[in-house]
Amino acid sequence: MVSLTLNNPVVQAYIVHSAILALKLLSLTVLTALARMTRRIFANPEDAKMLRGGKVKYDDPVVERIRRAHLNDLENIPAFWILGAFYVTTGPAATFATLLFRLFTVFRILHTIVYAVIPLPQPSRAIAFGIPYIIMLYMGIQVILYYVTAL
Amino acid sequence: MVSLTLNNPVVQAYIVHSAILALKLLSLTVLTALARMTRRIFANPEDAKMLRGGKVKYDDPVVERIRRAHLNDLENIPAFWILGAFYVTTGPAATFATLLFRLFTVFRILHTIVYAVIPLPQPSRAIAFGIPYIIMLYMGIQVILYYVTAL
Amino acid sequence: MVSLTLNNPVVQAYIVHSAILALKLLSLTVLTALARMTRRIFANPEDAKMLRGGKVKYDDPVVERIRRAHLNDLENIPAFWILGAFYVTTGPAATFATLLFRLFTVFRILHTIVYAVIPLPQPSRAIAFGIPYIIMLYMGIQVILYYVTAL
Repeated sequence: MVSLTLNNPVVQAYIVHSAILALKLLSLTVLTALARMTRRIFANPEDAKMLRGGKVKYDDPVVERIRRAHLNDLENIPAFWILGAFYVTTGPAATFATLLFRLFTVFRILHTIVYAVIPLPQPSRAIAFGIPYIIMLYMGIQVILYYVTAL
Repeated sequence: MVSLTLNNPVVQAYIVHSAILALKLLSLTVLTALARMTRRIFANPEDAKMLRGGKVKYDDPVVERIRRAHLNDLENIPAFWILGAFYVTTGPAATFATLLFRLFTVFRILHTIVYAVIPLPQPSRAIAFGIPYIIMLYMGIQVILYYVTAL
Repeated sequence: MVSLTLNNPVVQAYIVHSAILALKLLSLTVLTALARMTRRIFANPEDAKMLRGGKVKYDDPVVERIRRAHLNDLENIPAFWILGAFYVTTGPAATFATLLFRLFTVFRILHTIVYAVIPLPQPSRAIAFGIPYIIMLYMGIQVILYYVTAL
């Protein structure tokens, strides 16, 4: 069994990448708010009243695209937090684990950019989504194989 | 206070069930993608362009049903990850805790099947949802009672 | 490096506040179910069949408002769970960290009340959303600065 302390470089790499991903996830709220305010499109009547010309609308293409990018983050980033933490406990090589965490983080940031900031033609988003997804499948399978006797 | 190490069978049972739930959660993305591709129904114009006859549509009953199953996972599985981890720290009996983790996992998998794969009449989905939900309430209350002096 | 055990008061404060937030998040499911049943508005045909006069509808203002409050929880509470846990590892003063956890929890509960239970005019919801959000940004930046050498 590996011994895990906060001095462990894999633990530190996990923490810092996960924290960056949390801030990245939170940034989608700001993107949504900016899009809502510049386009004056809101989800609630009491919000629409705050701005002259504000109206309630649920099909604005720009706002909805950012919301889809946000939901996609919710579908992926919490799963990384848990699978990454478990993967660390299996004692992977520090350089390899750090590479996986870095790739995951960079591609999830790119995913937000190509989805919500500058919509690019496919397969940009498919790639930015797929690489982090495959990393999670890999980590999840490694964790299950390592602990399978506990089933 | 309980001592928790990675050799602890409850810790291992928690990790392996949580990892299975993470992969199950991720599988919903594949289900959505398959439904979108076979039905040629997409959420973004750049995705619709990839397939002949692809169109943007937000009310396809099959796709939306899978998306609701996915959202229901997001409403439940991360809460299990955190409550399960805390519950382990209260030092429950290994066989009982493992039983709860196993029931939670089996019923959440059944939930996906009866919701998104083979829609079954109620109360199939209500039961598949309710048992894991009650397990989380139980774990949450146990955790709060155990640590309440920290409030 | 700080030493973290389950006797640590910051660890205990983190656990108990996070568990309360998990139960609060789960309570949104009950709110949605109550609104659906009293208004007989459902998301699936098999659910609508359970109640006389039940129908499938996706634009009921009361139900959709509760669903937006729920989604907002998913966008914020899991990020708190991970950032709060990391923040604890940076060894903050116990009273200050506990104050942050308590403020976060109280304002997220208020957020649910002013959004989904008794809709209040703005800026009630903006404040109930903003204070927890700023706490998360603060914790996230503290964590990254503390572990930045691991990047």
